[in-house]
Amino acid sequence: MSLLVVGSVAFDAIETPFGKTDKIIGGAASYISLTASYFTKKSKLVAVVGEDFPNEFIQKLQDKGVDTEGLQIKKGEKSFFWSGKYHTDMNTRDTLVTELNVLGTFDPIIPDSYQDCEYLMLGNLSPAVQQTVLNRLQKRPKLVVMDTMNFWMEVALDELKQTLKMVDVLSINDEEARQLSGEYSLVKAAEKIQAMGPKYLIIKKGENGALLFYQKEVFFAPALPLEDVFDPTGAGDTFAGGFIGYLAKTNDISFENMKNAIIYGSAMASFCVEKFGTERLNDLTDEDLNQRVNRFKNLIKFNLAAL
Amino acid sequence: MSLLVVGSVAFDAIETPFGKTDKIIGGAASYISLTASYFTKKSKLVAVVGEDFPNEFIQKLQDKGVDTEGLQIKKGEKSFFWSGKYHTDMNTRDTLVTELNVLGTFDPIIPDSYQDCEYLMLGNLSPAVQQTVLNRLQKRPKLVVMDTMNFWMEVALDELKQTLKMVDVLSINDEEARQLSGEYSLVKAAEKIQAMGPKYLIIKKGENGALLFYQKEVFFAPALPLEDVFDPTGAGDTFAGGFIGYLAKTNDISFENMKNAIIYGSAMASFCVEKFGTERLNDLTDEDLNQRVNRFKNLIKFNLAAL
Repeated sequence: MSLLVVGSVAFDAIETPFGKTDKIIGGAASYISLTASYFTKKSKLVAVVGEDFPNEFIQKLQDKGVDTEGLQIKKGEKSFFWSGKYHTDMNTRDTLVTELNVLGTFDPIIPDSYQDCEYLMLGNLSPAVQQTVLNRLQKRPKLVVMDTMNFWMEVALDELKQTLKMVDVLSINDEEARQLSGEYSLVKAAEKIQAMGPKYLIIKKGENGALLFYQKEVFFAPALPLEDVFDPTGAGDTFAGGFIGYLAKTNDISFENMKNAIIYGSAMASFCVEKFGTERLNDLTDEDLNQRVNRFKNLIKFNLAAL
Repeated sequence: MSLLVVGSVAFDAIETPFGKTDKIIGGAASYISLTASYFTKKSKLVAVVGEDFPNEFIQKLQDKGVDTEGLQIKKGEKSFFWSGKYHTDMNTRDTLVTELNVLGTFDPIIPDSYQDCEYLMLGNLSPAVQQTVLNRLQKRPKLVVMDTMNFWMEVALDELKQTLKMVDVLSINDEEARQLSGEYSLVKAAEKIQAMGPKYLIIKKGENGALLFYQKEVFFAPALPLEDVFDPTGAGDTFAGGFIGYLAKTNDISFENMKNAIIYGSAMASFCVEKFGTERLNDLTDEDLNQRVNRFKNLIKFNLAAL
């Protein structure tokens, strides 16, 4: 089934305890599109970059089956740029530079050929822009998944709450869930956030895995214990790309199948953090994916009879 | 199979965001013995209390099949007392009072009738006392499990390292694993700690579950997402009690069966935190345990075919 991905395509410069990069490819939609390409060849991208953005990466997306008709290239302007430095624990980071550039005035134009998309992934962007995308689609997609960040809870809470009413699945991290709900307990937080609109809530906990809430049910997927987390940038977006990519491929949006999608999202995220930026997402094979998913299965497998 | 439990039996006074207790029953061996009693009626306790310790609790242990011949009651002396206050996140706490009292001169005397024990749980105590217990057993138990704390890494690292060489399973939390190994990555930490002696390493991550390392393999058990963690005191000891109690009951120390033991330990710990102190561990039924274990199974169950 066809998948529409909306989000940032940008430059990042990253420093971790393991090293430092110059400007490399970043942005939520870059990670999501690359990752989803392992599951579906029918994905379409809406994003904006400046004239400084390398054509090689756009070509790479096209080679992987991503339709880039909706990628706007602004002449004479610069791409969004973020730079950050991770602390030793890799769970916290300092933002060093944020240059909005083309993203500051992003108008998400949907090409006519995108109108039939059945799966929509709204990567982290201002809630107003996310809402505009939904309003411009003539037919509501079968499933709308949205990511957001604490920043929007601080500067655009009302718009965020309006947008939340329009989506099926919200994907945020544990701190964001606590901030959005005002509840410390993630179980209570999930209940409050589900009442805001999304029927499904994914709470990402980084190296501590991810929870999927639906009605009164909950599913948990661990993260794979890794020797080293080299660079966590984009892990959440990669997770989202694997999640919605798997759903679009299988075209089954039951809670049971979403559990499988969470496992694939976790598997893809476990690749992402092994190298800087999007590097590890370039050349994975089906065999790599299956092996990684099997490691997840083995990690939590036990065979217990009743007492 | 018979189980010997050595550790503190004491008083705690606890403050959490949900309330505050006067002096209540605490101590690692109290939690371990109570919990293990749900799995084996052949457990034996070595500990020390003062004259101030209530006979009702000793009676309760006996009623649950715990042999208290090795519980020393020191006339004219006072029991170990700890008081602490938890922060909102429940993962950090301030110690308000520590009165060693009888624990300061604890000499772990092993009654002759305990010499045949096949499973040994060394609750958190000074590594020197833990070592004395091992030296006083004429026959090495089939399995020795040891708990310890960061405090001993700071004040008695050499003795701790000596004791580590004598045990089969070490159970510590993530921060302690990092401190003991000097490695941030838990996978690397586990490798270093296994080289110190214990063939098996359990790393407890509180609300984020627990890992069991053996050779190059790893098993992960989640913690149950709970509406409220009322009081985390004793959760790690309860986990240990469920772990070794299940192993003693089933008398199977394979890695596969240890996975099951980890699940039972996690299930018992999820009860523990629902009320203050040992309260929730008093009157559980087999039905309660089975239901809880089923919640763990459902939490992580997925049914995934290869891509």
